[in-house]
Amino acid sequence: MTSQKVRIVFQPSGRRGDIEKGKTLLEASQELGVDINALCGGKGMCGKCKVKIEEGRFEKLGIQSSMAHLTAWQPSEEKFIDQKEKAEGYRLACAAKLKGDVLVYLPEESRVSEQVVRKAAREMEIALNPTVMLYHVELTKPSLDNPTGDFERLTEKLAEAHGLKNLIVDYSILVNLPDILRTADWSVTAAVWKDQEIIRLYPGCVEESWGLAVDVGTTTVAAYLCSLKTGKVHATESMMNPQVTYGEDVMSRITYAKDHPDSGLEKMRTQLISGLNDMIAKLVDRQGIAGNDILDMTLVGNTAMHHILLQINPEYIGASPFAPAIHRSLDIKTRDLGITINESSYVHILPIEAGFVGADNVGVLIAEELHQKDETQLVIDIGTNGEIVVGNRERMISASCATGPALEGAQISCGMRAAPGAIERIQIDPETLDVTFKVIENESESEHPSADGAKAKGICGSGIIDVLGEFYRAGVIEGSGAFRKTLDTPRLRTNGDGGVEFVIAWKDQSSTGHDISVTQADIRQIQLAKAAIYAGTKLIMRRLGIDRVDRVVIAGAFGTYIDKNEALLIGMIPDIAPDRILAVGNAAGDGARIALLNREKREEADWIARRVEYLELTTEKEFQDEFVAALHIPHSKDPFTQAPRPESKGS
Amino acid sequence: MTSQKVRIVFQPSGRRGDIEKGKTLLEASQELGVDINALCGGKGMCGKCKVKIEEGRFEKLGIQSSMAHLTAWQPSEEKFIDQKEKAEGYRLACAAKLKGDVLVYLPEESRVSEQVVRKAAREMEIALNPTVMLYHVELTKPSLDNPTGDFERLTEKLAEAHGLKNLIVDYSILVNLPDILRTADWSVTAAVWKDQEIIRLYPGCVEESWGLAVDVGTTTVAAYLCSLKTGKVHATESMMNPQVTYGEDVMSRITYAKDHPDSGLEKMRTQLISGLNDMIAKLVDRQGIAGNDILDMTLVGNTAMHHILLQINPEYIGASPFAPAIHRSLDIKTRDLGITINESSYVHILPIEAGFVGADNVGVLIAEELHQKDETQLVIDIGTNGEIVVGNRERMISASCATGPALEGAQISCGMRAAPGAIERIQIDPETLDVTFKVIENESESEHPSADGAKAKGICGSGIIDVLGEFYRAGVIEGSGAFRKTLDTPRLRTNGDGGVEFVIAWKDQSSTGHDISVTQADIRQIQLAKAAIYAGTKLIMRRLGIDRVDRVVIAGAFGTYIDKNEALLIGMIPDIAPDRILAVGNAAGDGARIALLNREKREEADWIARRVEYLELTTEKEFQDEFVAALHIPHSKDPFTQAPRPESKGS
Repeated sequence: MTSQKVRIVFQPSGRRGDIEKGKTLLEASQELGVDINALCGGKGMCGKCKVKIEEGRFEKLGIQSSMAHLTAWQPSEEKFIDQKEKAEGYRLACAAKLKGDVLVYLPEESRVSEQVVRKAAREMEIALNPTVMLYHVELTKPSLDNPTGDFERLTEKLAEAHGLKNLIVDYSILVNLPDILRTADWSVTAAVWKDQEIIRLYPGCVEESWGLAVDVGTTTVAAYLCSLKTGKVHATESMMNPQVTYGEDVMSRITYAKDHPDSGLEKMRTQLISGLNDMIAKLVDRQGIAGNDILDMTLVGNTAMHHILLQINPEYIGASPFAPAIHRSLDIKTRDLGITINESSYVHILPIEAGFVGADNVGVLIAEELHQKDETQLVIDIGTNGEIVVGNRERMISASCATGPALEGAQISCGMRAAPGAIERIQIDPETLDVTFKVIENESESEHPSADGAKAKGICGSGIIDVLGEFYRAGVIEGSGAFRKTLDTPRLRTNGDGGVEFVIAWKDQSSTGHDISVTQADIRQIQLAKAAIYAGTKLIMRRLGIDRVDRVVIAGAFGTYIDKNEALLIGMIPDIAPDRILAVGNAAGDGARIALLNREKREEADWIARRVEYLELTTEKEFQDEFVAALHIPHSKDPFTQAPRPESKGS
Repeated sequence: MTSQKVRIVFQPSGRRGDIEKGKTLLEASQELGVDINALCGGKGMCGKCKVKIEEGRFEKLGIQSSMAHLTAWQPSEEKFIDQKEKAEGYRLACAAKLKGDVLVYLPEESRVSEQVVRKAAREMEIALNPTVMLYHVELTKPSLDNPTGDFERLTEKLAEAHGLKNLIVDYSILVNLPDILRTADWSVTAAVWKDQEIIRLYPGCVEESWGLAVDVGTTTVAAYLCSLKTGKVHATESMMNPQVTYGEDVMSRITYAKDHPDSGLEKMRTQLISGLNDMIAKLVDRQGIAGNDILDMTLVGNTAMHHILLQINPEYIGASPFAPAIHRSLDIKTRDLGITINESSYVHILPIEAGFVGADNVGVLIAEELHQKDETQLVIDIGTNGEIVVGNRERMISASCATGPALEGAQISCGMRAAPGAIERIQIDPETLDVTFKVIENESESEHPSADGAKAKGICGSGIIDVLGEFYRAGVIEGSGAFRKTLDTPRLRTNGDGGVEFVIAWKDQSSTGHDISVTQADIRQIQLAKAAIYAGTKLIMRRLGIDRVDRVVIAGAFGTYIDKNEALLIGMIPDIAPDRILAVGNAAGDGARIALLNREKREEADWIARRVEYLELTTEKEFQDEFVAALHIPHSKDPFTQAPRPESKGS
């Protein structure tokens, strides 16, 4: 061991390595590939990266250490670690820096679980008109009477037989052209991109080809392997965005890139590309094809994911006036990005609307086709960032709203992503205040359920919406969101911080060994998120001169599991009949698939991106007022009972 | 040392290394970067790769060896190595294979000398209209009222200020776009390719940009660094084509690629690209600029050089029906070829006419502009291969003629390239048969000439034309090319092989220690070459229905030094007044420069390549008859004296 490096061991995984002194435990975990929750990107803001320094077990592992092997306790840690935990050896991984060897234990709640990725492809009717098409031709051999070159021989035949004019050829195809033509005895199939460029040449007659549609979400990346012949999705693969360890939300990653100007951006990009290539390897393996049999690719993502993927400095989209590097769609050779499909192919990256309304939203719009409809729709895409579009064939306005990550489970004391152990559905009996809840199970567990059901670890997005709605219906909170402290139930109690909390799951129902409860501060976060959506929607509607919409479309994995009635109840969306609310799942991914299978939709996407008006909410004078008003839970009919809502059941 | 490798040392350079057993000395020299003459590409046909195995010095170098460390004497070696040389330890490097350690001495005549590259750029009037242009713009900063993305902001301004519409941007430029705009405080200069694509972005206002025109000859590669602002050539650089060690002529290299299917082609390509990059480094260094300040590049070369550069299998252009991989011009990103100019730039490779009439000939044609002239011109480009074009604005026909490499000094017993020590000019006194000659000197030597002048090492192309003409004028040979054996001069003698030879330079005038003489077989080679050109020209003229041309243009470094009168005398070109013969030097390189500086000329080149009719001489019935007839030295007026030519002076 050199004097500059110390040994670190992470339990329970057992990963270990020698790390430079002075690095934080979080940085060490990133270097060793140990996933610690770091929602805030290591800023000491979220308190999610609590770890336990295990002194007692050092000797067993041949490591000599003590708490002195870490830098001193930081004030920031006081906020998240109480005296008891402190005595047990808890630290924040982002605050404690290495001075000597340490053994670190990750409590379950600090581990990043594999998210239950609910990004299955929707069944859709997509008119098949792919950008890459296959054309089979039989050529006459060159002779002394007709010694025309191979490329001209091929393209003249493609023009004659298939009407393709002025074709060019990618350099890497040209290299092998003479050998392929002769090996194939002059019977070949050309893959042509956009009627312009030959990007693959197969010996003989080939009819099947493949395309890949990718949705790069802040948290989840989904890839759909589609037949370009039938349009059918043959295989789907998802992964956590590997950048999650550099910060859970868009702003944390922008900050990470800014704070590490030497390699931060490159590191995030490389890990994403490498993850994409892993997914591609799995998909082609499952389909029994080769990577270079994938001839076309489309990609959507929010503006930050777009920039980071392209290694474009995302700093400027993170600060006013939020100008992106480019709006229009891009066609980039996959080899220039290091993506391991056919090297002559292009990846088509959908256009961006604005600094915070990205290609994912354009994907949603070509999937939902607002621009072709008479009825006015509200489309809400709640991912780690929230985007709203309201409009119809006449006019469309979009906005980005700073929902914060609450609706995805972050910044909520017991919040978590939609992973096994997450409470996804909650009901509270208004009489007894008893709570029943449903926990997301591991697929393997759900096949062999334990007698007492799955244990809870935290609350995910759909559960969080339920919390607010059920609290209100059961009279646990006022319309303002404040707890009714007079309620007679042991669930409502004062916690260690002196604040009030309501217990959703008792210790024995939980896998963490602690009660799972919702605090007054948590309720405030949920209110902020739902108010941002509501206020943003209201401002767009006012700009459009309307006071109602004909349909509400909720996109995003989150939307799939949301209870429409609860969403209406808490006042996240404007009043509408519940049957006019549609959850469409991963519409951004659907948009990527549509653009993959129909080239006209790519043009439509470019048209939409230019056409949608962007409303910058932060500069709208009325926004603050609307937002404050929307924090309250509204007085209107309870969508469950159709009865007037109680102002104050418990009083 | 492992059992599989043996040590080899080359003298006088002292290069050494461990080489696998079983490789030839020639292969070993190529691996170690020692340049041995291998005109035939290592086929045992040219006898140029004679080396001496130095047994006596082994002990000094700590190497134990003997002749037994090489494979046995081959019959092919008998042809080139006489008994005395054999006794001294001479071998052909291409025949002898390694069995054990050896020390090898390279006699001077087996070394590849740096050729005197006479490819200076001609002074030409070229209308300046480059493909890459610079445009300076001052942008308004983004604001909340106008948060349009950077790329759209830039291109909207370029459209407004300079009329550039629908611009795209190369990926590598996009990556740095946001930072450059902000660093430059929104004042930038964009380099735009073909009014289509932004390939470089400079902060501030930049007015000067650079382009590179390259002529890849079989033997010599020339590069011209030009200002795209003024069109002026600022620096010129030349090198031997590094592929020369794999064979001197096109066919040898094609064979080398075919015989080494694993890596032969890649090796030749890599060495050429690496040589190009070395030249680029020297040019930019001399100009005080950076490699990425070169924004555009054009390249010409014959079809084989074209294919090898692009790593396209050249096998099929070497055999009937000689179909190339592609005719049309190509624009390839320099990064895809590994050429180290601006990475977003393209190299424009001029089109090819036919399997043996390449982009170099197209370069000659856009330089000479046959297609714009009323008068009918004959253009002969004699490089390592010979190309002929006859025509005018109405019609043009080209042909490739198998001149063989005789006119460049190969396959001639004392032939060599135009390098220091080469006899470039010869006169023979018809009375005394005394020979006077002029030798190419080293530049350093010519500044400090030795008292007795430079010593001769061999005869180069222009000297070879003189040989035939002077032999005929002085009556040394008959019109048939046969020596007049009755002449009374010690210069005409029977040599070791029993053949007749004529001594041009005596031992004491030579640097090799041997007499330099021309054999009957040599004369036959020269006759074959000149007859091929004459017969090809005649067939084209017949096809055009003409019996005379208005002008003869001789292109190529060879043509620059040729004696017009001798060329007429020996019947290489049709009868014409000597003042209608024009030597234009490296017209192919001129063509590359023209295409670099004027984008319309690129279109013209594509048009010409399609327009020129190609006549395949090998399939023309009359060719053989014309060719045989043209072997004779013609009966017509002696252009020197205007007197009727003597049929047989000596008889």
